[in-house]
Amino acid sequence: MSKANNPKLKSWIEVSADSDFPIQNIPFGIMKKGKGFRVVSIIGDQVIDLFELNKRGYFSGISLDSNVLKSEFLNDFIALGKKKTNKVREKISMLFKHTNRTLKNNEKDKKAILSSVKKANLSLPVKVGDYTDFYSSRDHATNVGKMFRDPANALLPNWLHLPVGYHGRASSIVVSGTPLHRPKGQQLPMGKDKPVFGPCKLLDFELEVAFVVGKSTHLGESITMDNAEDHIFGLTLFNDWSARDIQKWEYVPLGPFLGKSFGSTISPWIVTLEALEPFRSKSPKQTRPKPLPYLRNDKDRNYDINLFVDIVPENGQGKTVCESNFKYMYWNMCQQLVHHTVNGCNVNVGDMCASGTISGPQRGSFGSMLEISWKGTMPVDMPDGSQRKFIHDGDTVIVRGCGEKDGVRIGFGEVNGKILPTKK
Amino acid sequence: MSKANNPKLKSWIEVSADSDFPIQNIPFGIMKKGKGFRVVSIIGDQVIDLFELNKRGYFSGISLDSNVLKSEFLNDFIALGKKKTNKVREKISMLFKHTNRTLKNNEKDKKAILSSVKKANLSLPVKVGDYTDFYSSRDHATNVGKMFRDPANALLPNWLHLPVGYHGRASSIVVSGTPLHRPKGQQLPMGKDKPVFGPCKLLDFELEVAFVVGKSTHLGESITMDNAEDHIFGLTLFNDWSARDIQKWEYVPLGPFLGKSFGSTISPWIVTLEALEPFRSKSPKQTRPKPLPYLRNDKDRNYDINLFVDIVPENGQGKTVCESNFKYMYWNMCQQLVHHTVNGCNVNVGDMCASGTISGPQRGSFGSMLEISWKGTMPVDMPDGSQRKFIHDGDTVIVRGCGEKDGVRIGFGEVNGKILPTKK
Repeated sequence: MSKANNPKLKSWIEVSADSDFPIQNIPFGIMKKGKGFRVVSIIGDQVIDLFELNKRGYFSGISLDSNVLKSEFLNDFIALGKKKTNKVREKISMLFKHTNRTLKNNEKDKKAILSSVKKANLSLPVKVGDYTDFYSSRDHATNVGKMFRDPANALLPNWLHLPVGYHGRASSIVVSGTPLHRPKGQQLPMGKDKPVFGPCKLLDFELEVAFVVGKSTHLGESITMDNAEDHIFGLTLFNDWSARDIQKWEYVPLGPFLGKSFGSTISPWIVTLEALEPFRSKSPKQTRPKPLPYLRNDKDRNYDINLFVDIVPENGQGKTVCESNFKYMYWNMCQQLVHHTVNGCNVNVGDMCASGTISGPQRGSFGSMLEISWKGTMPVDMPDGSQRKFIHDGDTVIVRGCGEKDGVRIGFGEVNGKILPTKK
Repeated sequence: MSKANNPKLKSWIEVSADSDFPIQNIPFGIMKKGKGFRVVSIIGDQVIDLFELNKRGYFSGISLDSNVLKSEFLNDFIALGKKKTNKVREKISMLFKHTNRTLKNNEKDKKAILSSVKKANLSLPVKVGDYTDFYSSRDHATNVGKMFRDPANALLPNWLHLPVGYHGRASSIVVSGTPLHRPKGQQLPMGKDKPVFGPCKLLDFELEVAFVVGKSTHLGESITMDNAEDHIFGLTLFNDWSARDIQKWEYVPLGPFLGKSFGSTISPWIVTLEALEPFRSKSPKQTRPKPLPYLRNDKDRNYDINLFVDIVPENGQGKTVCESNFKYMYWNMCQQLVHHTVNGCNVNVGDMCASGTISGPQRGSFGSMLEISWKGTMPVDMPDGSQRKFIHDGDTVIVRGCGEKDGVRIGFGEVNGKILPTKK
C-alpha cells in the first residue's frame, strides 16, 4: 500500500469529517480557469491547481510537461502512466501533510495554488473516446428479469458466463451540475400496436460506478486478468439516465439507444485505483458456473464503496431512495476489461466503462426507480407528501459514494443532475 | 447543382474510364507525409495535397488556416462548414479543368502538389467520436428475421416505425488496407448449454455505407428533416465485420458487442453529399405504416450507388459475391440522423453513422455471407474450387461502390480488408 494511503496522515488543510477528500484521496479533475483549464486535485474544500504547483517547482524530481497540466481534459495527464501520476499523488500527499511547512508557510504560492471548491468551475474530467456500459450486478439483472421475463429464470442464459455489456453514447456524458431536458421519443402505449411520440413518461436514474481506462492497447491485443489493473486509472460515479418507455419500444433486437443517449452524468473527480486500495473486498464466488479460464478471478477485486441516491424535488426536501454498495458486483472491473478486449478490441486512455446499475440484495439497495418502485407498482413517499414512481420535472437526482475505513473516508464528490421539462 | 458536378467537365489530369475519381468527385482524405499528415483530394490516380495548394496561393479568396490542412484527421477541415469546404471543392474543380493552365503549366508546383495514389499512404480520414450503426435495409432485416425468427413475421414490431440502431465501437474503425486478426471469444455450440472459447468460426462482412457528421449540435437539440442534410458532410463505404457466433451468444438483451467491436473498415475517401447529388433517387413509400410526423419524408433522399463485394482468397482469384445498391435503404440518412437526435442526443463533427447491411430484394444482392450462404446452407463456389459459407483466414474482402450517370462515375475507392489468423 502506498504511503499516501496511510490512515494516520493529516493535512494542514482542514478536512471536515463528512468530506470525501482527506489527504488520503487526492483524486484528479479539471477546473475551468478564465478561458483555459487546469488539472486539479482537492483536499477538504480546497482545490489544488497542479499547473501552479508545477510552475512553482513543487513537483521537482517529476518531469512534467506544463501543457499537460493546462489541458481541457485529464487524458494527456493519465497517458503519462501510473508510475508518474502516482508520483504526483505521493508528492501532493507529502506537500500537504500537517508537518510539511514548505507550501503551508508560503502565502503567495498558496493563493495561486489553492481555491475554494465552492467557487470552482469543475468541468468534464475526461474526453471519453468510447463509452461502454456493463450489466454486472446480479441483483439488478435478476430484478429486471423477474419484472419483464420469467421470474423462475430471471437471468438470461449468457449472464453468468460473461459480463454482458453494450456500447453507449460518449458525446452526451456530462459533468455533475449539468441540467438535462427530459427526452422525447417514441413509446408504445400499453395494449396498442402503434407508437406515439412525446416526452418520456418513465424517466429513471441508474446508480453506477465507472472506470477510466489509463493505458491504451493496440487493435488485436487482449488484456488479461493479470495485467487488467494496470489499465484502470481510476473511478467515477455515474448516473446512467434511462427513459424506460423509449428503451422498451426500441431495444429489441440491437439494444438500448435513445433510451440512454440523451445524457449520462458523472462526478467531477476521478479517484485513483490506488486511493481505493484500502476498500478492496472479496469478489463473489463464481462456481455455478465457473467462468471460462480467461475470466477466472482468484483475487479480491471488488471494492467496498457505499453508494447513495437522493431525489430532491424542486424547492423541496430530498430523500435517500437507495443505499447500495459497489461490492455487490458479480463481474468485477478486471473481468469487464478482459472480456471487452478478448476479441482484440482496442481501448484508449479516457475510455469509460460503467458497471451497470448496482443493486444490492435487499429492497432499499436497488439502484433504479424501476426496481425501487417495482415498475411503478410501489411508489416512494417523499417528505413533501408527493410520490415518486419515476423522476419528475424539477427533480434533482444526487448520487454519492464513499469508502470508509480506519477513520478515513474516500469519496467522489456528488453527481448532481436536475431534470428540466422537455425542450420544445 | 454545383458547377463542379457538370458532367461535361474534363480534367487535365488523365482519368481512366474505370476510375472512381473524375473531376466531378473531389472527395477528401488524409495522407501520411513524412511524420505529418496532409488533407488531400484525388483526381484520376493523382493525390492532391491541399496544404501545398494553399501554401502556393491556389486557394486565394478562401481564408484557410494552414494547420487545418496538415491535421491528422479531416475533423477540423469539416468543421470549417460546408460553405467553405464546398468552395474548396469548386476551386479544385476550376484549377484542374482541362482549359485551366495555371497549375498545369507550373511543373514545380505540380511536383509539390501531386503524387501518385499508388505510393500514397492514406490513413483513417476522420477521428470518429461516436459511431452508430443502423439496421435500415428492409430486405436485410427481413432476411435475418426469416432465418432466426418467424418467417411470417420477419420484421420486429418497431422496425417499420423507427430506424433501429445501436451504438458501435469507434476505436476499432480502421482504414482500407488494414489487416485484421480473426477475433476470438465465447460461442455456444449447437445443442449445448455451456459456451466454449476459441476463434470465431462464422466470420462475416456487412456491406454498408456510412455518413460523416459535418455539423455539431448541442445536447438537447434535435435535427429535423428540413435541416438534416446540412449536418451530413459526406459518405464512405463501410465493412461492418461481424463474428456471427460470438454475436449470437452475447447479444441478448443489450445488443451486439464483441461480435462487432474487433474491427470495422472504411474507404480512405469521404465523398461529399454534394458530389453525390446527381445520384439522388426516390425514397421508398412509407405508408404502411406511415412514420410519426418527425420522421416523415417527402423528398428523394436515397442515392443510386452501385455496391459490390468481392472475396479474394490468398494467392487466389477473387469473386464478386454481392451486387447491391444504396438506393435499397428503407430509412434514409436524414431519417436516421433525425431519429438519432430526437431525444436530444448531441452529435459532433466526425461522428459516423453506418446504414446497416444493404441487401437488395434478390439473391445476389444480399450484403452479408449470412444471407448469401443462407446461414451456411448454400455455400458459394469460388474460382479455385473452394467454397465459402463465411470468411476464411487469408481472404481479403473488398467493398466497392460508385454512382454512374451521364458518363460520369463517382466512387469511393475500395475498402480492402484481409483476415489474418487469430492472434495467440
